[in-house]
Amino acid sequence: MRSVAIIGIGQTPIDEHWDRSLRELAGEAVLNAMHDAGRETAEGLYIGNMMSGVINSQNQLGALVADWVGLRGAEAVKIESACGSGGAALRSGLMAVASGELESAVVAGVEKMTDRHPHEVTAALATAADADYELDMGVSFVGLNAMIMRRYMHEYGWKHADFAPFAINSHANALDNPYARLHQKITLEEFEKAYMIATPINLLDASPIGDGAAACYLVPADALTAGAPRVVIAASAFATDTIAVHSRPEALFLTAAFRSSKEAYKQAGLTPEDIDVFELHDAFTIMASLSLEASGFAERGQGVKLALDHAITPKGRIPICTRGGLKARGHPVGATGIYQVVEVVQQLRGACGKTQVEGAKIGMAQNIGGSGASVITHILKNV
Amino acid sequence: MRSVAIIGIGQTPIDEHWDRSLRELAGEAVLNAMHDAGRETAEGLYIGNMMSGVINSQNQLGALVADWVGLRGAEAVKIESACGSGGAALRSGLMAVASGELESAVVAGVEKMTDRHPHEVTAALATAADADYELDMGVSFVGLNAMIMRRYMHEYGWKHADFAPFAINSHANALDNPYARLHQKITLEEFEKAYMIATPINLLDASPIGDGAAACYLVPADALTAGAPRVVIAASAFATDTIAVHSRPEALFLTAAFRSSKEAYKQAGLTPEDIDVFELHDAFTIMASLSLEASGFAERGQGVKLALDHAITPKGRIPICTRGGLKARGHPVGATGIYQVVEVVQQLRGACGKTQVEGAKIGMAQNIGGSGASVITHILKNV
Repeated sequence: MRSVAIIGIGQTPIDEHWDRSLRELAGEAVLNAMHDAGRETAEGLYIGNMMSGVINSQNQLGALVADWVGLRGAEAVKIESACGSGGAALRSGLMAVASGELESAVVAGVEKMTDRHPHEVTAALATAADADYELDMGVSFVGLNAMIMRRYMHEYGWKHADFAPFAINSHANALDNPYARLHQKITLEEFEKAYMIATPINLLDASPIGDGAAACYLVPADALTAGAPRVVIAASAFATDTIAVHSRPEALFLTAAFRSSKEAYKQAGLTPEDIDVFELHDAFTIMASLSLEASGFAERGQGVKLALDHAITPKGRIPICTRGGLKARGHPVGATGIYQVVEVVQQLRGACGKTQVEGAKIGMAQNIGGSGASVITHILKNV
Repeated sequence: MRSVAIIGIGQTPIDEHWDRSLRELAGEAVLNAMHDAGRETAEGLYIGNMMSGVINSQNQLGALVADWVGLRGAEAVKIESACGSGGAALRSGLMAVASGELESAVVAGVEKMTDRHPHEVTAALATAADADYELDMGVSFVGLNAMIMRRYMHEYGWKHADFAPFAINSHANALDNPYARLHQKITLEEFEKAYMIATPINLLDASPIGDGAAACYLVPADALTAGAPRVVIAASAFATDTIAVHSRPEALFLTAAFRSSKEAYKQAGLTPEDIDVFELHDAFTIMASLSLEASGFAERGQGVKLALDHAITPKGRIPICTRGGLKARGHPVGATGIYQVVEVVQQLRGACGKTQVEGAKIGMAQNIGGSGASVITHILKNV
């Protein structure tokens, strides 16, 4: 495999985009990435998306978006791994370029969730769970995560308020990100008083749905030109686990995240100590903690302590969610994995303003599908 | 890219499998392919599927099926390009192995369509069309193909009965295929009298829905062992077109099929004359004709003549649908592209009994998403 570089990024604000269609949203991000890369065409297009068939009555997004952005004819396909669809799409595009099959590819993620009633969106999100053994029992996707969080609190002795720093950090970081869904600083008191969704997960533990799209432009690293931003994909690793949480030997350990990050460290010849910034999948505060633990930044049950110790802020030991994370930047599910990668690129370019991690040279993005069933980890670095 | 071989194939009968779940269907095909390959594990799993989110309330099929077949932990992802999902999944798996990233991969297609009311299935199939500019006008997917067929008949002067040989050939060939959905010989008279679905497409122009799964096992060609079947993927090409038929400069020419097959011939260093067997996408009889024309086997408007001249039968110049095609083997949409490839492998192995194409050494499979919007062509050959 040859080395692959990201030379362009693009994104739309995450919002309720009632005035724009699915293809318009995706198209804006793709065209922004092409413009940023200084390219007018691409040989392939890889679209991460989870629920367009259910919510938008539209499948075949590859052909749909390729046509819309002026790439009619190009290879174009949709990749789906629930909320991990974006990361999975990046890995597909990466392999297409790394293999030598394509000389350029745009990888995008898009999700347009707010066109339907929230009940329908909740049902659509639940397709990330096991339809036969979880969904048919009536449990929602938030409910599954709530059971994990409650057990975690019981096992390790944490109070609900101990998770507050995750949400507070994400909300604080989003203030400086014009693309973020929520621009609202929150306090510990607000976190504790937020209304309950599925005990113990309340509104400020959970990421908001939204419409959005993000994209990045891939070329072989040997096509990099002098003076251009020099960000390469140093590692890419995908691991799975059982979808049903009750089938896992350990419900409180993200085995797929452990495998995926371990393989990524191996590929890049790095350890967690080398990671300057980590865009993780904080769909719920509990997931932020579990992701830190599985990826080697904290012992089991101690991810929360990292947050309480302020280690996760832009000036901390392992900054996470530096542009707002899923919690405040937003979580248009199939697009999230690409937003994470775009944000790591922004950090490596030194373009993050008030939330810039000083001297960031190596960044990691970890995208999770389901409650830890599909985990895709990418490590990017400046060269 | 290194050369990739198919060393195992598996499939389930296509039927109304009310007694089996989505994962059981996919699992049977995957395990059959692994058994056929003599392998007990695989590094990656690529699942082609179109409508599991809509019909089965289940996304994230990669993790779902990997777990079920004993590959928990392995990289596993779903690929979607409407009815072209199977071919697109093969191309993804191919790139993973060809790039050197994986040493083995199972590629499968699965669709379980009969669990819902036919009206819901019709709506789900329509997500292959353009939701904003076709579907919102009330046109069904059959309706779109009917408009193409009617115009084709008008432009080139064919009668409806002239399309009969496509259906008759597919039904005749399916008689010898135990996995086929329909085992029923049909006559010209029956073809003409079949009840109308969307004029001029009647029941015997159209492929039946069904539940089914198929799979194949990929390894680098240099891992082939002496004595094992030696089938390699000589070409793989994916092209797109606008989804909306009315946006195409020529509604009667499958530009994406033309581009995809042209690129495949170039990769393999072959011409249409070299193809011994062609598993094409006869979702409707009109599509069989258009596919033959776009792939260089007939002049525009003359695909029907090939059929009338008996050139498409197993003993003809360019045998198509030798195991029943979409028309009679069946069309579980996301699985179809893999069924086609499995059948080409069967031909190259000389395992097709009464419908064996004598001396078949080079075979082509062409999978189409939408009314020609995503076209994936693979050429396989014995080495």
